[in-house]
Amino acid sequence: MKLAIYGASGKMGKELVALAKNDEKINLIYEFTSKNNNFDKLFQADLIIDFSTPVASKQLLMKASLLEKKPILLVGTTGLNEEYFELAKNYNASFFYSSNTSLGVALLNELVKKAATMLKDFDVEILEMHHNQKVDAPSGTALTLANTAKTYLSKARNEQVNLVFNRTEKRNKNEIGMASLRGGNVAGYHNVGFYSNDESVQLIHNANSRAIFAIGAIKIAKWLINQKTAHYTMGDFVNYLMQK
Amino acid sequence: MKLAIYGASGKMGKELVALAKNDEKINLIYEFTSKNNNFDKLFQADLIIDFSTPVASKQLLMKASLLEKKPILLVGTTGLNEEYFELAKNYNASFFYSSNTSLGVALLNELVKKAATMLKDFDVEILEMHHNQKVDAPSGTALTLANTAKTYLSKARNEQVNLVFNRTEKRNKNEIGMASLRGGNVAGYHNVGFYSNDESVQLIHNANSRAIFAIGAIKIAKWLINQKTAHYTMGDFVNYLMQK
Amino acid sequence: MKLAIYGASGKMGKELVALAKNDEKINLIYEFTSKNNNFDKLFQADLIIDFSTPVASKQLLMKASLLEKKPILLVGTTGLNEEYFELAKNYNASFFYSSNTSLGVALLNELVKKAATMLKDFDVEILEMHHNQKVDAPSGTALTLANTAKTYLSKARNEQVNLVFNRTEKRNKNEIGMASLRGGNVAGYHNVGFYSNDESVQLIHNANSRAIFAIGAIKIAKWLINQKTAHYTMGDFVNYLMQK
Amino acid sequence: MKLAIYGASGKMGKELVALAKNDEKINLIYEFTSKNNNFDKLFQADLIIDFSTPVASKQLLMKASLLEKKPILLVGTTGLNEEYFELAKNYNASFFYSSNTSLGVALLNELVKKAATMLKDFDVEILEMHHNQKVDAPSGTALTLANTAKTYLSKARNEQVNLVFNRTEKRNKNEIGMASLRGGNVAGYHNVGFYSNDESVQLIHNANSRAIFAIGAIKIAKWLINQKTAHYTMGDFVNYLMQK
Repeated sequence: MKLAIYGASGKMGKELVALAKNDEKINLIYEFTSKNNNFDKLFQADLIIDFSTPVASKQLLMKASLLEKKPILLVGTTGLNEEYFELAKNYNASFFYSSNTSLGVALLNELVKKAATMLKDFDVEILEMHHNQKVDAPSGTALTLANTAKTYLSKARNEQVNLVFNRTEKRNKNEIGMASLRGGNVAGYHNVGFYSNDESVQLIHNANSRAIFAIGAIKIAKWLINQKTAHYTMGDFVNYLMQK
Repeated sequence: MKLAIYGASGKMGKELVALAKNDEKINLIYEFTSKNNNFDKLFQADLIIDFSTPVASKQLLMKASLLEKKPILLVGTTGLNEEYFELAKNYNASFFYSSNTSLGVALLNELVKKAATMLKDFDVEILEMHHNQKVDAPSGTALTLANTAKTYLSKARNEQVNLVFNRTEKRNKNEIGMASLRGGNVAGYHNVGFYSNDESVQLIHNANSRAIFAIGAIKIAKWLINQKTAHYTMGDFVNYLMQK
Repeated sequence: MKLAIYGASGKMGKELVALAKNDEKINLIYEFTSKNNNFDKLFQADLIIDFSTPVASKQLLMKASLLEKKPILLVGTTGLNEEYFELAKNYNASFFYSSNTSLGVALLNELVKKAATMLKDFDVEILEMHHNQKVDAPSGTALTLANTAKTYLSKARNEQVNLVFNRTEKRNKNEIGMASLRGGNVAGYHNVGFYSNDESVQLIHNANSRAIFAIGAIKIAKWLINQKTAHYTMGDFVNYLMQK
Repeated sequence: MKLAIYGASGKMGKELVALAKNDEKINLIYEFTSKNNNFDKLFQADLIIDFSTPVASKQLLMKASLLEKKPILLVGTTGLNEEYFELAKNYNASFFYSSNTSLGVALLNELVKKAATMLKDFDVEILEMHHNQKVDAPSGTALTLANTAKTYLSKARNEQVNLVFNRTEKRNKNEIGMASLRGGNVAGYHNVGFYSNDESVQLIHNANSRAIFAIGAIKIAKWLINQKTAHYTMGDFVNYLMQK
């Protein structure tokens, strides 16, 4: 596989470069940065991993869309807007997007679907903790997990369930509560809890380091390159892993 | 539904009686105990819930096997031996057995299958904690969860994985470690953890009281009575709940 | 000890009555309720345990203040206002107040003092979880623990630390974050965490039932009756237990 | 402070060297290894931090004992025997030994004393988890914490309490249970739990990396150099931090 990293000087980009260089099955042909910005070289890759910025990701998508032989795009950039995803719909080659490429989080998201369906009468509450430098709360991953719980719980209960961040009043049955803690250098802790009067189930993910996103992206790249041309999600990759 | 409880004077039996009496959809026709031991009255039930002892369960099974109109049997007695299950195979009516009728534990067992398949390279370790009066360690539920993890991990890795209780030496890759704590009146805590160098997933069940087993058994009874005649497991009930 | 319970028909009152009746060293002489409301009988007690309402507690305090032979007051009513405590200052007999009479929480509060002093450069974050019927957030106990952490951290750092409930922006170094979850029938979970870049310490209290407050109150009553006339706090009782 | 590191090529030694070089208040004058093994240069230090091997530590102690102007010794080597500590008793200069120089663990050890005294009727159970390469179980730190709990619980109960590793039978009241898990690259997790029928207190330490031991050792060195000549323990350092 001829691989290129787009956004190679960012935190995630550096992790990806390090992993790709140590992987015998990968031929890393280009590290695209704001300085080494040759699109011709970039587009000689079979697959481009893009962990850059919303502006840069849009630029990549537009340029790649004009190519005859389009590269596979594996995108993990956060903060992309609706316009980007509208454009991406028309990308006529394999395309994969996920805001969280960790295997453990992807699994947790699947397990939340099962739990929300089976324990539909339980109260669902979500806690996340991250390091003291994180600027936003709740985390994007917590929101992803919460929306999964919301969708499956609403379906199972046959009534609308809502997310409530930082509840200060009495709980309503049709709420999913969310709370955030910040401290030290916690790389990422997520706890999706299901509570009844008699028992509880907690599904917990703990990241030791941000390397998990890069490790996951490399695994996804190796899978994606062997799939038929289509647009894929993390759910597709999880299904593949489950059936293997 | 005409229901009878067999073993109605035991801890679980009393819980079941209390729940059945408060349930409008259930007609509790007989509470069988060592004193009120009329099998004729017992066998007028459509469905018998049996939380008794191995000896008593065997007696029930043998007597019921001789009937022309056999009742549905829902058995939660622990400590049953191979001989019992051999006899049960020939029971020519609906039959359900589970050593743990808690919904949450049943879900956890399903989630362990998913996690062991997807996170096959992770180290699996199982912790359980119970009250200070529990006589055995590890708990039966921990063993059930461990055997599920073992089966699915062995399959995913394509090599045999073994259970190790109370490890004192260096961990081998093909082991699942188990540990037990005892203290206070903890009704039942189980934690199945999956650990890699970069992330971990923990699946936790916590019982607030032993009522969860009775609550689960009543739910299973209501489902079981509407199924076609067959032998069922907790996995069948979980599948039903998932697809509902 | 001649004991009376004031507020004997409330949840806590009933627990106290049950414990007092089963205790050989206690002579329960009166259970004061809105119906059995004879103050003359009440005031024949050596010690009155008051778990009632703010209005009722104030009435008790005022009436007792007028007596020549004043009973010892052990007060656990929540929601008392400043006016009450001003009045209480002049109560000329032994007086004990605590919003949380659990031994475990009292210990946790002491441990927080030690941890906040020694780990003064760590980030402190507090999580609490309670049942889905609790009307307020954060819990009174969480606030007590948070204020202890705040006081000792401010002193150790020599700068003011502030409590922040439900943070949505980036953490400031001089903050203690607080978050709340609600679900099932969790009787009370409190976690005071200290996080640095390299390690963390978590001090956790878990209540199995509300009985812990009644159990603690009875223990305090037995101690209080043997103390010289003075006003006491939970800290005094903890110190006694530590030195015993 | 003129500092030397003895055992500078080991894991801990390298961490110490890196921290010392980045610290303005420290003048690192020598890194003693099996290759750079000049004792004359080593002994020009005011204070020597020794994280080496039992054999090497004994050699250092014997050579230093012969000097007229003896350096301060701060020793963190694990596995030292009785003979070493007998020799050390006669070391006629400041001497500090601890098997665990982490601040958080030192604090936890102090808190265990308080909790074991105050919650003397509670069941104490200790869990530890480490990475999958650790050769021994339970961890040395778990044993230290367990022995602290044992000492203070025995004193408070006025009867002997015993440590039980990997319990398989029913709990006895006078036991402290210990259990170990191994997986992933967990740097070190310790949980000392106190359980009654009604509540529990858990004191938890989590190490993010092994750097905590080096960080602690450097802090201790800075304190130790300003103390009057004497032999010190971690408890002395903790007391200093508490009173500061």
